[in-house]
Amino acid sequence: NNKRIQKMFGYANPITRSWQGDSTILKSQLIYPIFVTDQVNTKNEIKSLPGNYQFSVDSVLTEFLEPLVKKGLKTIILFGVLLNNASKDLTGSLATDRDNSPVIKALRLLKKQIPELVIACDVCLCAYTSHGHCGITHDDGSINNQPSIERLAQLSVEFAMAGADIIAPSDMMDCRIGEIKKQLFAAGYGSKVAVMAYSSKFASAFYGPFRDAASSGAKYGDRSAYQLPPPSRSLAVRAAQRDADEGADFLMVKPAGPYMDIIREVKNAINLPMCCYQVSGEFAMLYHSAQAGAFDLKTGVMESLLCLKRAGCDIFITYFTPQLLEWLPL
Amino acid sequence: NNKRIQKMFGYANPITRSWQGDSTILKSQLIYPIFVTDQVNTKNEIKSLPGNYQFSVDSVLTEFLEPLVKKGLKTIILFGVLLNNASKDLTGSLATDRDNSPVIKALRLLKKQIPELVIACDVCLCAYTSHGHCGITHDDGSINNQPSIERLAQLSVEFAMAGADIIAPSDMMDCRIGEIKKQLFAAGYGSKVAVMAYSSKFASAFYGPFRDAASSGAKYGDRSAYQLPPPSRSLAVRAAQRDADEGADFLMVKPAGPYMDIIREVKNAINLPMCCYQVSGEFAMLYHSAQAGAFDLKTGVMESLLCLKRAGCDIFITYFTPQLLEWLPL
Amino acid sequence: NNKRIQKMFGYANPITRSWQGDSTILKSQLIYPIFVTDQVNTKNEIKSLPGNYQFSVDSVLTEFLEPLVKKGLKTIILFGVLLNNASKDLTGSLATDRDNSPVIKALRLLKKQIPELVIACDVCLCAYTSHGHCGITHDDGSINNQPSIERLAQLSVEFAMAGADIIAPSDMMDCRIGEIKKQLFAAGYGSKVAVMAYSSKFASAFYGPFRDAASSGAKYGDRSAYQLPPPSRSLAVRAAQRDADEGADFLMVKPAGPYMDIIREVKNAINLPMCCYQVSGEFAMLYHSAQAGAFDLKTGVMESLLCLKRAGCDIFITYFTPQLLEWLPL
Amino acid sequence: NNKRIQKMFGYANPITRSWQGDSTILKSQLIYPIFVTDQVNTKNEIKSLPGNYQFSVDSVLTEFLEPLVKKGLKTIILFGVLLNNASKDLTGSLATDRDNSPVIKALRLLKKQIPELVIACDVCLCAYTSHGHCGITHDDGSINNQPSIERLAQLSVEFAMAGADIIAPSDMMDCRIGEIKKQLFAAGYGSKVAVMAYSSKFASAFYGPFRDAASSGAKYGDRSAYQLPPPSRSLAVRAAQRDADEGADFLMVKPAGPYMDIIREVKNAINLPMCCYQVSGEFAMLYHSAQAGAFDLKTGVMESLLCLKRAGCDIFITYFTPQLLEWLPL
Amino acid sequence: NNKRIQKMFGYANPITRSWQGDSTILKSQLIYPIFVTDQVNTKNEIKSLPGNYQFSVDSVLTEFLEPLVKKGLKTIILFGVLLNNASKDLTGSLATDRDNSPVIKALRLLKKQIPELVIACDVCLCAYTSHGHCGITHDDGSINNQPSIERLAQLSVEFAMAGADIIAPSDMMDCRIGEIKKQLFAAGYGSKVAVMAYSSKFASAFYGPFRDAASSGAKYGDRSAYQLPPPSRSLAVRAAQRDADEGADFLMVKPAGPYMDIIREVKNAINLPMCCYQVSGEFAMLYHSAQAGAFDLKTGVMESLLCLKRAGCDIFITYFTPQLLEWLPL
Amino acid sequence: NNKRIQKMFGYANPITRSWQGDSTILKSQLIYPIFVTDQVNTKNEIKSLPGNYQFSVDSVLTEFLEPLVKKGLKTIILFGVLLNNASKDLTGSLATDRDNSPVIKALRLLKKQIPELVIACDVCLCAYTSHGHCGITHDDGSINNQPSIERLAQLSVEFAMAGADIIAPSDMMDCRIGEIKKQLFAAGYGSKVAVMAYSSKFASAFYGPFRDAASSGAKYGDRSAYQLPPPSRSLAVRAAQRDADEGADFLMVKPAGPYMDIIREVKNAINLPMCCYQVSGEFAMLYHSAQAGAFDLKTGVMESLLCLKRAGCDIFITYFTPQLLEWLPL
Ligand SMILES: [Zn+2]
Ligand SMILES: [Zn+2]
Ligand SMILES: [Zn+2]
Ligand SMILES: [Zn+2]
Ligand SMILES: [Zn+2]
Ligand SMILES: [Zn+2]
Repeated sequence: NNKRIQKMFGYANPITRSWQGDSTILKSQLIYPIFVTDQVNTKNEIKSLPGNYQFSVDSVLTEFLEPLVKKGLKTIILFGVLLNNASKDLTGSLATDRDNSPVIKALRLLKKQIPELVIACDVCLCAYTSHGHCGITHDDGSINNQPSIERLAQLSVEFAMAGADIIAPSDMMDCRIGEIKKQLFAAGYGSKVAVMAYSSKFASAFYGPFRDAASSGAKYGDRSAYQLPPPSRSLAVRAAQRDADEGADFLMVKPAGPYMDIIREVKNAINLPMCCYQVSGEFAMLYHSAQAGAFDLKTGVMESLLCLKRAGCDIFITYFTPQLLEWLPL
Repeated sequence: NNKRIQKMFGYANPITRSWQGDSTILKSQLIYPIFVTDQVNTKNEIKSLPGNYQFSVDSVLTEFLEPLVKKGLKTIILFGVLLNNASKDLTGSLATDRDNSPVIKALRLLKKQIPELVIACDVCLCAYTSHGHCGITHDDGSINNQPSIERLAQLSVEFAMAGADIIAPSDMMDCRIGEIKKQLFAAGYGSKVAVMAYSSKFASAFYGPFRDAASSGAKYGDRSAYQLPPPSRSLAVRAAQRDADEGADFLMVKPAGPYMDIIREVKNAINLPMCCYQVSGEFAMLYHSAQAGAFDLKTGVMESLLCLKRAGCDIFITYFTPQLLEWLPL
Repeated sequence: NNKRIQKMFGYANPITRSWQGDSTILKSQLIYPIFVTDQVNTKNEIKSLPGNYQFSVDSVLTEFLEPLVKKGLKTIILFGVLLNNASKDLTGSLATDRDNSPVIKALRLLKKQIPELVIACDVCLCAYTSHGHCGITHDDGSINNQPSIERLAQLSVEFAMAGADIIAPSDMMDCRIGEIKKQLFAAGYGSKVAVMAYSSKFASAFYGPFRDAASSGAKYGDRSAYQLPPPSRSLAVRAAQRDADEGADFLMVKPAGPYMDIIREVKNAINLPMCCYQVSGEFAMLYHSAQAGAFDLKTGVMESLLCLKRAGCDIFITYFTPQLLEWLPL
Repeated sequence: NNKRIQKMFGYANPITRSWQGDSTILKSQLIYPIFVTDQVNTKNEIKSLPGNYQFSVDSVLTEFLEPLVKKGLKTIILFGVLLNNASKDLTGSLATDRDNSPVIKALRLLKKQIPELVIACDVCLCAYTSHGHCGITHDDGSINNQPSIERLAQLSVEFAMAGADIIAPSDMMDCRIGEIKKQLFAAGYGSKVAVMAYSSKFASAFYGPFRDAASSGAKYGDRSAYQLPPPSRSLAVRAAQRDADEGADFLMVKPAGPYMDIIREVKNAINLPMCCYQVSGEFAMLYHSAQAGAFDLKTGVMESLLCLKRAGCDIFITYFTPQLLEWLPL
Repeated sequence: NNKRIQKMFGYANPITRSWQGDSTILKSQLIYPIFVTDQVNTKNEIKSLPGNYQFSVDSVLTEFLEPLVKKGLKTIILFGVLLNNASKDLTGSLATDRDNSPVIKALRLLKKQIPELVIACDVCLCAYTSHGHCGITHDDGSINNQPSIERLAQLSVEFAMAGADIIAPSDMMDCRIGEIKKQLFAAGYGSKVAVMAYSSKFASAFYGPFRDAASSGAKYGDRSAYQLPPPSRSLAVRAAQRDADEGADFLMVKPAGPYMDIIREVKNAINLPMCCYQVSGEFAMLYHSAQAGAFDLKTGVMESLLCLKRAGCDIFITYFTPQLLEWLPL
Repeated sequence: NNKRIQKMFGYANPITRSWQGDSTILKSQLIYPIFVTDQVNTKNEIKSLPGNYQFSVDSVLTEFLEPLVKKGLKTIILFGVLLNNASKDLTGSLATDRDNSPVIKALRLLKKQIPELVIACDVCLCAYTSHGHCGITHDDGSINNQPSIERLAQLSVEFAMAGADIIAPSDMMDCRIGEIKKQLFAAGYGSKVAVMAYSSKFASAFYGPFRDAASSGAKYGDRSAYQLPPPSRSLAVRAAQRDADEGADFLMVKPAGPYMDIIREVKNAINLPMCCYQVSGEFAMLYHSAQAGAFDLKTGVMESLLCLKRAGCDIFITYFTPQLLEWLPL
């Protein structure tokens, strides 16, 4: 006489189990963050991201990536890092210096050596500006929006010309996506290069270790001003709506794990392919507590990704990509 | 200065295209309806469903199915057909006659000859009763619900004992699912045999040709009384909710094509694996208008299934299964 | 002790039945497609749409429409057809030639002879251009968007001046609706002429027979490039959102039947009056399978429309309009 | 260069205006509350509801209703009122006393004199019990649920036997609907008599004047214990869900005006025909402020009903029914 | 054996009761409408809003407000009233006359005397124009949109310069919000002054008594043309969406009570802080029926606000503010 | 000419900021897990949960809690721990041994010493059974459901008699809530004791460290069989729906952080007060990575809770409660 909802019994054989819906994560859904520097012939491990490196743009980089590509790596996202502070200036001119920009050089090298690799490029000025801000500033240090937008669109076109498949502007301020799309069209890349918006990016405590990797620590505080406050559910959806309206091809929620309800809300509201960035602090939480014996690393990481998939995520930027290429079957 | 939404440009290479979401239909998501009779060594083509047959339960059946299984057929649904009207009676006793029930015999034969084939069984009395009603009736011809429920649960247990993987009660009246689940548990099949509810089944004009196949034509009219009126959006969702509450493992919308909005509403509201039945009238519409030159059959059928997938369908019962086993890659 | 949901018993008398919600279809909700040619005194039956014709713009047309108007026809949609290919050119100049444009001439004739008839006009260039494309093209055959937009707005204003009540731009590319609205306002028709967007128009196999009617067959393939891929649920909603943002007064989903889940999603998301176009392939499917005996034509057609109504449709463009004027009571 | 959403321009002629959706209120959607007493040949105006009366069950009642029925009144809801307190007892036995129950007598009279009138009956004990509670009580005055349920089901069957078309249990406690449905079925009225649940009934300040009408004032306070607290959005939806699960044919939100958001939520969640009760306090607010010159009564009442319709209401119980029969065209 | 949903029992102690969700209304969520005139040293009671006044901008005003601020009043909204019709002209020039505009003078006075008071300003021209229209008109009396927009933005900047914290444009036509935001940014107030859109403002019968207060009666009829028709659920959501897209910081639904379903729909769809305006007709309904004894005023008003809170309202503009400052604890 | 959505500017002063919605977390929303043992006068720190202890039921416990209560602790949840394995048996009889059950003794002690403290009790058998299963088992070790349900209801009544305010059955199998509610009513506690269902409890890797605390490690694996698979979004909602249907007063999602999308879906679907359990693995991740310098502990923990609040959580079970009593203002 019990009214039961039997929860396990539609699963009894592999065919009916396959009807329960899709919870597989594919290697083709992973994007691996790669930091490229202005150095030569060198690979620095990033302390707070064990197993991750800053690479010089040469055989050090290709020798690292080639075995990963053999294991199924399909996509990376490039971050430029200037270890030589002297080459930074007010407008981040090195970013578009075709001879010296680490990203442009890496695009050329990789498109030649590993042409099948899909390459996304982070587009922002903060790694290249002497003041560390994400845009061009007024004298008082506040962002001067109009020239900033134009400069970011210029970077996008340069990266597209060097071979980028995906442009990923990361400062999430207004009007970037629209201008970048417009300039990519004007330059003839409109139908070839996609734009991934860092659309719902929160002012989170969990970005900490990234500063080591991107060499952009000291000025961090300022940037949080144009990120979303963590409790703001409605702002997050409206920011994603704005970027979709401006023409974004893919949306992003960042960080991933602590914002899974937002992934679901944005997915439901807009339904564009949804990327999430499992940030450095998430890496640290999984890594250090597994080290401390709280759980097995593989089990914990796999659960973290399955949860993101369940929440609506289609594409995963994660520092665990090398391990996942071992762990995932396809 | 136009505000454009660029719709094609996130698709430029195969990796980013794969992020757009899943619109593949797999052979493992198809269920092929098979009509089994009380005849011997014979195969009758069903006039209104060209390419579909009524099979005797013997090598005629296995010889038809084996090549389809080789091509990837994973699942069938069995319908019993008594061509000898004399063996019908008031309670449809032949249905559970272990020596003569076409469905029980087919289950035994197929589980022995093609053990990897997943077999669903339609569970209803109308093919076995002399009056052609779906249940046991009062003297005035109206359904006597309590003994009908018990009889349907008895059929379900018999079919489970003979090897059925999925029980699919098709009369969609109240309380079937709950009682069947309860009796399957009592008989020890609770965790092995799944139940697929014909949960949102409409009183549609598009069932016509099925009468030929199931040999149940003349009394059809009566049955429409316990089906949903086509305009009733809210009844359809509530009927599915009722079956989910009673423990259904899979839901169904029938017919499929003209009720796609209902598939989406039920999928959104309940989110169980969703089956749709592309009924005989839908087969006829695609088949005859392709014959008349209105469009290419393959193109039309593939669009019809992709539309169902888009609407939320996970599993497809379709008379085009043999062709789809040729057309689908996986 | 059964937990029943009684589904029929709130219907017992006509008053309580009338509370169950509205599933009536009114003659005033039908739009009949009318093809008007550059011929004289002639009426060609369209082979693939039995009972439908290409009409010359003269008494042949009015004599056909007058009895339908008497039976309750309220609205038509005009398609221009140039049977004389020699009058086509690169910009489709005949479309706005006030003396020779079949649509302009039909507007004048009908507004004079049958002033109570509401007239919508399909607005596109493909019936008038020598290359058969929907817009003005670059040398390489691709659409040159800016002059195309301007030309379509020009057509719209001409049709408005000739008496059109509704402008229905059918190529569903970006920015049409906004420009047309703007030019209609500038010309003083902003508050008198409504705009119906073909907002969610899919690249479907079911348009086939239309080519006969519109005499625009050979170049069809190209046009599919700017239509939606059938599996794309999210693109369909976003395309409708774009047109609503640009000021559309009514939205459309086309084809109707195989995209009913989209009708419901768009209706829920945007909630503008929703039109659906039951296309030529849908006509063919209903017509030929009824001919083949699969079901009664009236029953099948009525179910197809009630299903569309249930899915959220308010206005129906259908080739069965003449029959429906007989079948519907109001 | 403004991005406008033009809001008025799809309305330019009557046909396109009719596509904007349905905001008509029909006379057949009104239910008029009628209070019937144990008196003879008398009609008392209810002070706080000017124009409304307590009627004896005889020609006074029929002479009042007949002209309203001529004007289009289709449905009333009967409330029994015992002005003679001596006839009240612990179980409200008069309610089912076939010779003396005002409601039973009124049902018989009206079904004979005005057979086309649909009659709903309020089902509760509070008008008949000496303690004024809605059920049978324990010694401490708290409700004894099981015998109360049985008594209410008994009333329902008696009213059904006397001709009631709709049973409307108003105390909104658990399990009423299920038991009433069960007993109506057992007595053979299951398919003839519908049940309208007072499903979301709030403990509101706006019931005040009703006490005069129903002669149930003094004990009112107690009853608020089983009504919903005004701020409780989620309880209201769950209460309606409970009644729908128990088999209710129609749902109700009471009061109507101050709970319109609840009407919409319940309509969206459950989608049964939705009734709202514009209570005595709402009548008072519209009546007295119109008297004070704040607005014209007809304009204010019509807006109040159109707003309820917009919120999802299908059926209106209102003391303004006599005026609305004058004001509404159909 | 009853399936009960127990509704009261999670409330048994104050801690668990506090988990049931928030239905408190805070004094900081109230906005009190204040009418300021071109008179001197005088306070006129508004007949149809007993207890509300038109104030001269001098100690009469500050002496009225100071005790309210002591009781917890945090926010007012200022309406300018010109009792001297001679100072009205075609462009409402007095509105921005820094020496004579009642609103500008009141802003200066109050910011000096009661600097902690947050001040919103109604921004519209109708109180200042000789023709009583909300904008600058064409010769034929219709609104000339472009100069109207510019004039309203000019008012907004003037009010911001005089100390306004919130700009509340009330004519709800297209493009106001965007232009006002733009001019506030240009004038350096972008980050200091918020904009509250009267986004979903209906053409309601319940505005009547306001005419006395704002001295803008005779020309009222015209203005209803740019307000929403009461039955239009979808227009209301789209109008709010438009204002959110243009940059509104807060949305409003007006009137409040009869449009609570709209408050919920807009809140769900957009999720900006939501203000509602309990208009003069709502005041009248509560006031006069309480006077007539239908219910206790405090109980009725408190229920009306709790209902608005439940429907999604965050901020309340109400003429009952003085009473609420007594009734609310915080 | 940019279309901006200004995101920061409605926040300019404290009053308008307070309108942005509620993201405060109150001390009254915290529940602190307390482990009580069969030991005497002793407090063992739990290695994997630094700062958390197993307490004997005596002054060690009260001395620990009293200062926390002074700081604002309102609610705890008790877990019984038998360190003496010899006192475990097949039915967990010690759980209801009024003289020896650690939970019963703690309830009595605390209700006497700290009567204002609200006490929830975990109800499960696994801490008391010799086999470590959550219920009474068949000989083969599988759960025997009917006696298990009865035993859990017996525990619940015993805990209620000893003073429990909230019963929290944690095994999340079918039918617990209904039976517990029924027995609590029968024993007269129905209206005094609330039931919190561990309704959506996932088979997670993040429970690891809890085993130390509850001394229930070795048999853990078995229990995962009746928990939800991490990818199963629809099962999680349906499980919560089941518990709400059975009468749960509060729902729970466990773990909290990696299942935030589920919190939002359940909150939206059911809207009961929602509790989340920030489990031991989440504690470990925040604790160890803060130790490793990835971020500041307070900042990380506060963000983790604000995110849960945003996702819809009303009540927080967290091992960081002692720190939060320091960090939170109210
Ligand atoms: Zn940056
Ligand atoms: Zn049947
Ligand atoms: Zn075209
Ligand atoms: Zn009562
Ligand atoms: Zn105005
Ligand atoms: Zn356990």
